[in-house]
Amino acid sequence: MKKFFITALTASLVFGTASAMKPVTISEQGSFMAGGKVITSAGVYNGVNDPKDFSGNTLHGDHAYVFYQIPVKAKKYSLVFLHGYGQSGKSWETTPDGRDGFQNIFLERGYKTFIVDQPRRGRAGQSTEPYTFPAKPDDQLWFNNFRMGQWPNFYDDVAFPRDEESLSQFFHQMTPSFPTEQKVIVDAMIAVFEKSGEGILITHSAGGGSGWMTAIQSDKVKGVIALEPGTFPFPKGELPAVEDTTSPFPAVAQEVSREEFMQLTKIPIVVYFGDNIPTGDKPVANWGFDNWRTRLNLARKWEAVMKKYGGEVEIVYLPDVGIRGNTHFLMADLNNIEVANVMERWLKSKNLDK
Amino acid sequence: MKKFFITALTASLVFGTASAMKPVTISEQGSFMAGGKVITSAGVYNGVNDPKDFSGNTLHGDHAYVFYQIPVKAKKYSLVFLHGYGQSGKSWETTPDGRDGFQNIFLERGYKTFIVDQPRRGRAGQSTEPYTFPAKPDDQLWFNNFRMGQWPNFYDDVAFPRDEESLSQFFHQMTPSFPTEQKVIVDAMIAVFEKSGEGILITHSAGGGSGWMTAIQSDKVKGVIALEPGTFPFPKGELPAVEDTTSPFPAVAQEVSREEFMQLTKIPIVVYFGDNIPTGDKPVANWGFDNWRTRLNLARKWEAVMKKYGGEVEIVYLPDVGIRGNTHFLMADLNNIEVANVMERWLKSKNLDK
Repeated sequence: MKKFFITALTASLVFGTASAMKPVTISEQGSFMAGGKVITSAGVYNGVNDPKDFSGNTLHGDHAYVFYQIPVKAKKYSLVFLHGYGQSGKSWETTPDGRDGFQNIFLERGYKTFIVDQPRRGRAGQSTEPYTFPAKPDDQLWFNNFRMGQWPNFYDDVAFPRDEESLSQFFHQMTPSFPTEQKVIVDAMIAVFEKSGEGILITHSAGGGSGWMTAIQSDKVKGVIALEPGTFPFPKGELPAVEDTTSPFPAVAQEVSREEFMQLTKIPIVVYFGDNIPTGDKPVANWGFDNWRTRLNLARKWEAVMKKYGGEVEIVYLPDVGIRGNTHFLMADLNNIEVANVMERWLKSKNLDK
Repeated sequence: MKKFFITALTASLVFGTASAMKPVTISEQGSFMAGGKVITSAGVYNGVNDPKDFSGNTLHGDHAYVFYQIPVKAKKYSLVFLHGYGQSGKSWETTPDGRDGFQNIFLERGYKTFIVDQPRRGRAGQSTEPYTFPAKPDDQLWFNNFRMGQWPNFYDDVAFPRDEESLSQFFHQMTPSFPTEQKVIVDAMIAVFEKSGEGILITHSAGGGSGWMTAIQSDKVKGVIALEPGTFPFPKGELPAVEDTTSPFPAVAQEVSREEFMQLTKIPIVVYFGDNIPTGDKPVANWGFDNWRTRLNLARKWEAVMKKYGGEVEIVYLPDVGIRGNTHFLMADLNNIEVANVMERWLKSKNLDK
């Protein structure tokens, strides 16, 4: 492998943009597949004689793909990034308008980064179960649900670039989500942590649910930063009711055993939500807003249960700490460096930045 | 973006392997989507009011995904890597046994690298046409076709690692290939070169066919290195007959116009084939061998036509230059540094290493 010294910043040769960074040094980069399973077709293998006979053939699927970069003098803990629905590891790379994403921002600060494509997604496309992609146009659903605006209008204060090319890049980076049981993702993520070593799990959106279960099952997960997670785990018997919502995606809590739940109380956890999320117990007409109202409410209920059992958890609504305009894609918004800064301050406060 | 200085080599922290490299400096890394198109569903958009109404929604698909890294003091020309069938950009990254792939090897030598996932593949999964993945086990077909051996046995001299974990990594890195017209890939690749700037196109296997058409249509392609391409373009009226073969994949030439063909004669081209490819015009019983016998024959016929029209082309059977044991995956074999060395000598000989 190799060492990289990341130094002064230049304007991007490819995007023509510029940003400012401090010197950093990295020692190694590469990729690997983690976890997964093997299925075998019926019959006796005969492929040497007849290539059209697939009897006794195998398929290796359901693994995660990981691209990693390790700075020299790296901090102790790896940062392992798990994307959300309709996304791949691309979520954490260059932003739609060509700025540095969290991959580069945290590398520059001396963190080891492990960027995951979850099983059956992106470069981890091989699946042990069949699936169909209908090619059904739905970009506008996500534009609204991700709180960029109400199509075709952006919200006035939104921290997303307004030019056509950035929006095109964003829509193109979406990638099919095929049906995948949470256990398939969690098993692969546990295997990722066996390779990355002890680290912080950083999840986004639908990656949040798998993230909680990974943190429960892997002793390599030393902390969790969840960006607008889709759900939260509650101990059996303590699940809150599902709130009424104008969103097509009700916020449904996940049930875990008391023993599983208690594992989560043993590590520091922080959850961030962006801007434009209404408060209150009543559905609002803007379903893209309401989707996140119910999730922020669920987060507050989860925080209460976590704290009752001794959990070390914070729920941060970014406008409360002076960071405004964020969409659901906190890691790519125009102010993503500010978001990275609050994340890093939290890491420092928990002694996880060593 | 950022600068990397790649320096002395360390043992891999993740894989536990070691290799030796020279210092290199890199200035920028990131990713982008290139090309593609937008489809729109029928009807009038109403998603603000009804999220389940997908009328007038768009889908952005058929683009390529590219991850790039640019060394400081980089050579003039970009290296743009296009993978083959059942693969993604992962082909060029870490090898199945944890050594550096061409991504790292050429970065270390001062080349700008652009690693592509073709449309409807890997992180470029969004497609404007529906597709189905049958999850049909077929690993052994590829093991035989890629000349690793005749399953379950490796060839005695093969330059592929023998341990179970390496083979498992290799099979897991395969990823579904969905039906994609060549034009979709070529259009995206032309857009990739608009971002990468002038460069050398390095193709593998099924990427070869799209590669020739990209080189014909984009004036940014200043040379082509094709690793065991699946096909070759011939001018109308000069296509060779399809040879009989025991392989299920006959080597079929691609027809182009005389004008298109002449574009290819204007740039330097080299084609590499690995080891264990029989000669002659008669099919051999080992279909995995025979598949490549017909392709190497086709390459020789193409070389003759190219030279007739003034083309600057070399076909290199690696054992003829003392490099032995290579499978179809020249870039990942145990001797991949030797393969990189002959490629770089060719680049130098054509003044493409500046």
